Amino acid sequence: MASKTGRAKKAKAESPASTRLLATRLATIAREFHARRWALGTSGNYSVVLQRDPLQLLITSSGLDKSALSPNDFLDIDPDAGVIRGKGKPSAEAFLHLAVARNTHAGCILHTHSVWNTLLSERHANISGLAIAGYEMLKGLQGVTTHVHREWIPILENSQDVPALAEKVSSLLQRESSLHGFLLSGHGLYTWGTDIAEARRHVEILEFLLEVVGRREFSGAVASFD
Amino acid sequence: MASKTGRAKKAKAESPASTRLLATRLATIAREFHARRWALGTSGNYSVVLQRDPLQLLITSSGLDKSALSPNDFLDIDPDAGVIRGKGKPSAEAFLHLAVARNTHAGCILHTHSVWNTLLSERHANISGLAIAGYEMLKGLQGVTTHVHREWIPILENSQDVPALAEKVSSLLQRESSLHGFLLSGHGLYTWGTDIAEARRHVEILEFLLEVVGRREFSGAVASFD
Amino acid sequence: MASKTGRAKKAKAESPASTRLLATRLATIAREFHARRWALGTSGNYSVVLQRDPLQLLITSSGLDKSALSPNDFLDIDPDAGVIRGKGKPSAEAFLHLAVARNTHAGCILHTHSVWNTLLSERHANISGLAIAGYEMLKGLQGVTTHVHREWIPILENSQDVPALAEKVSSLLQRESSLHGFLLSGHGLYTWGTDIAEARRHVEILEFLLEVVGRREFSGAVASFD
Amino acid sequence: MASKTGRAKKAKAESPASTRLLATRLATIAREFHARRWALGTSGNYSVVLQRDPLQLLITSSGLDKSALSPNDFLDIDPDAGVIRGKGKPSAEAFLHLAVARNTHAGCILHTHSVWNTLLSERHANISGLAIAGYEMLKGLQGVTTHVHREWIPILENSQDVPALAEKVSSLLQRESSLHGFLLSGHGLYTWGTDIAEARRHVEILEFLLEVVGRREFSGAVASFD
Repeated sequence: MASKTGRAKKAKAESPASTRLLATRLATIAREFHARRWALGTSGNYSVVLQRDPLQLLITSSGLDKSALSPNDFLDIDPDAGVIRGKGKPSAEAFLHLAVARNTHAGCILHTHSVWNTLLSERHANISGLAIAGYEMLKGLQGVTTHVHREWIPILENSQDVPALAEKVSSLLQRESSLHGFLLSGHGLYTWGTDIAEARRHVEILEFLLEVVGRREFSGAVASFD
Repeated sequence: MASKTGRAKKAKAESPASTRLLATRLATIAREFHARRWALGTSGNYSVVLQRDPLQLLITSSGLDKSALSPNDFLDIDPDAGVIRGKGKPSAEAFLHLAVARNTHAGCILHTHSVWNTLLSERHANISGLAIAGYEMLKGLQGVTTHVHREWIPILENSQDVPALAEKVSSLLQRESSLHGFLLSGHGLYTWGTDIAEARRHVEILEFLLEVVGRREFSGAVASFD
Repeated sequence: MASKTGRAKKAKAESPASTRLLATRLATIAREFHARRWALGTSGNYSVVLQRDPLQLLITSSGLDKSALSPNDFLDIDPDAGVIRGKGKPSAEAFLHLAVARNTHAGCILHTHSVWNTLLSERHANISGLAIAGYEMLKGLQGVTTHVHREWIPILENSQDVPALAEKVSSLLQRESSLHGFLLSGHGLYTWGTDIAEARRHVEILEFLLEVVGRREFSGAVASFD
Repeated sequence: MASKTGRAKKAKAESPASTRLLATRLATIAREFHARRWALGTSGNYSVVLQRDPLQLLITSSGLDKSALSPNDFLDIDPDAGVIRGKGKPSAEAFLHLAVARNTHAGCILHTHSVWNTLLSERHANISGLAIAGYEMLKGLQGVTTHVHREWIPILENSQDVPALAEKVSSLLQRESSLHGFLLSGHGLYTWGTDIAEARRHVEILEFLLEVVGRREFSGAVASFD
């Protein structure tokens, strides 16, 4: 199951001994993202790939206040989102994290709900995506080496049927292998990286670019601008 | 008087011994909300239900700088807003807190004056409310389990006759039992929760959603958007 | 000279012993206002009335970085802006502070350059002022007891001839005795209070209200709104 | 090479002993600018002129997370961007820093990627620059003594051919000697000062002014405003 796409590797697997450290780093990111208004209330969830075969994720427990997350608020889950270690239950969106982990080289997956990603995910839902092109900041995305780049961020329709949504995420990622993230309409952003630092940087870069596009598109100055 | 709606319960009553702790937690929230620009100057006020029958609230004293609130800046009041314990006088808006406490299951009531809640409370005053629908973030409101939800936030006309306004709040809450908050036009937001953590989360969620709606509606991009 | 308007009083005079404490409090406010983006770079200046007859002010030295102001960065000046104590030279705008001190009950005078006060001071310069009405937050201004209040904030044309500008400020304050502040076009806000706490609160309240009005007026949604 | 324009001076040269201190100050600025959202992810780079003849710069290493920069993350480079001391490789944009150092009196050069400088660098790219006039805040720029000043900020087309872009920067700075900064389209702002404090102040002033202009131009209220 973990090798569905052929891209999954044993790489990124983490020894149990380091799990606590990873939870500490994710908890720090969770509190930072809350302070930066990217994941308020109980929104947002975060995971790290602990092992590839079989797939094992460290992921935020469900329903916790993201301003006060601690290293104890993470669980180890198996490929079916069953709890291997830790208390509480995994986020309902664990299936989306598993789908991303299976279909990319991600070592870390981060999900945010910012004002600008919410607004743009709604505004562009009818064309199922958003293109961002021409900005130097795009070079902050792994593998992008020039501002002459068009980053396509697909938008999937939000749904409470998370397993079905996870299937759509898997299809999307198998179809388009160069993505750095996707949006769920009226919901938020998923992005990832080969490790925690790269995933966190992708959130910063994409949230910046979405704010730039958002301020431009929601400005009433679009007509004279384009 | 405390059992007007039949929903009031002895539950939430707090022992005097824990009152100091509650005041400490509310003071922390007050300073946090000031820092987040939700209650500047002397605006904003905060209460906890100490006892249900007869009703007793712990509430902010009137006229204090919310950036420097301490646990000593709270009073115990009776159902007529008379001071039971503490110095200073209760906020003029104590009657609104009492009305919310009587007519909901609230254990904590929080009132904020943000830029976006002010702008939207004014813009939608003529239709006496604002509907927010379709956002995943709505699930941060107690009892909401899907983004396919329409949250109605009523807007009452602001008034300096607080007892009369409190009567309108009571009528509103008896008429519409599924509300999570309401706005006073040109004034601010009232929301609540069964405990302090839930009330604080409701502020975060509603302020986020009001910012999303506010940025969309005050963008000049509404026409092309809808 | 200090009793020009008849409103000046010996009141507010501070003993030399307390001057250091006042400088410490103003320096704290200066750093706070910098952090809140109300006075970046070397912009902004702050004073306290030390003595009424003859008039003596404690005021920021000229040209200092407001993110790092210390209690040593203040001077005592006489009614002609001559230095009584301290090193450095007073801000060129000392004459404006003196004009406010002479013509109001101010014990503390604060001047900020925010994005929103700059934008509105420019937009409304042609009608020489800005009215703000109907907001509960107006009650944070000294003497205002209801949201049914129209606060007029005059706008004077900016000038580098500060003594001449100070004359215009004096005339304005003698003509309109109920003001809480005024704007200089493309420049910033002057406000004051009977003490430091009231003046600081007036900055918070006016900056909040200017942001509300600014977001509304610069939204492209004005037509459908009014 | 370092004396191309005749304006370069031995002045500003720093003894090796003080290099560590300069790196510490630049690292502090880097973390501050990240926190202020002026240089997210790995964007932004910063340099100090260590020596004029031959030219020697202390500059940020390439590709580092700007939220966690330390004094070890800087290199000494020669006039061809070769590393004299330190590990890692210099930013690709080192050639732009060298071009600014050669053609101005700069002792420190700072480069930021903010939302507003990105938006305006794109919007005004077709006329190759942006004029800002009439604001008191302009006086925060070195040598400007009145708000009756028109600051021209040229915009160069962004390019990944940095040496060629550096040639254009040199030509620009030789042609227009009174500039305080320039923009690269869709990329960001370069500004400088005779020392670190002045360069940092120029970033604050220019970012403030770009926000003012940006909020006005992207407001949908332009027509009624002008």
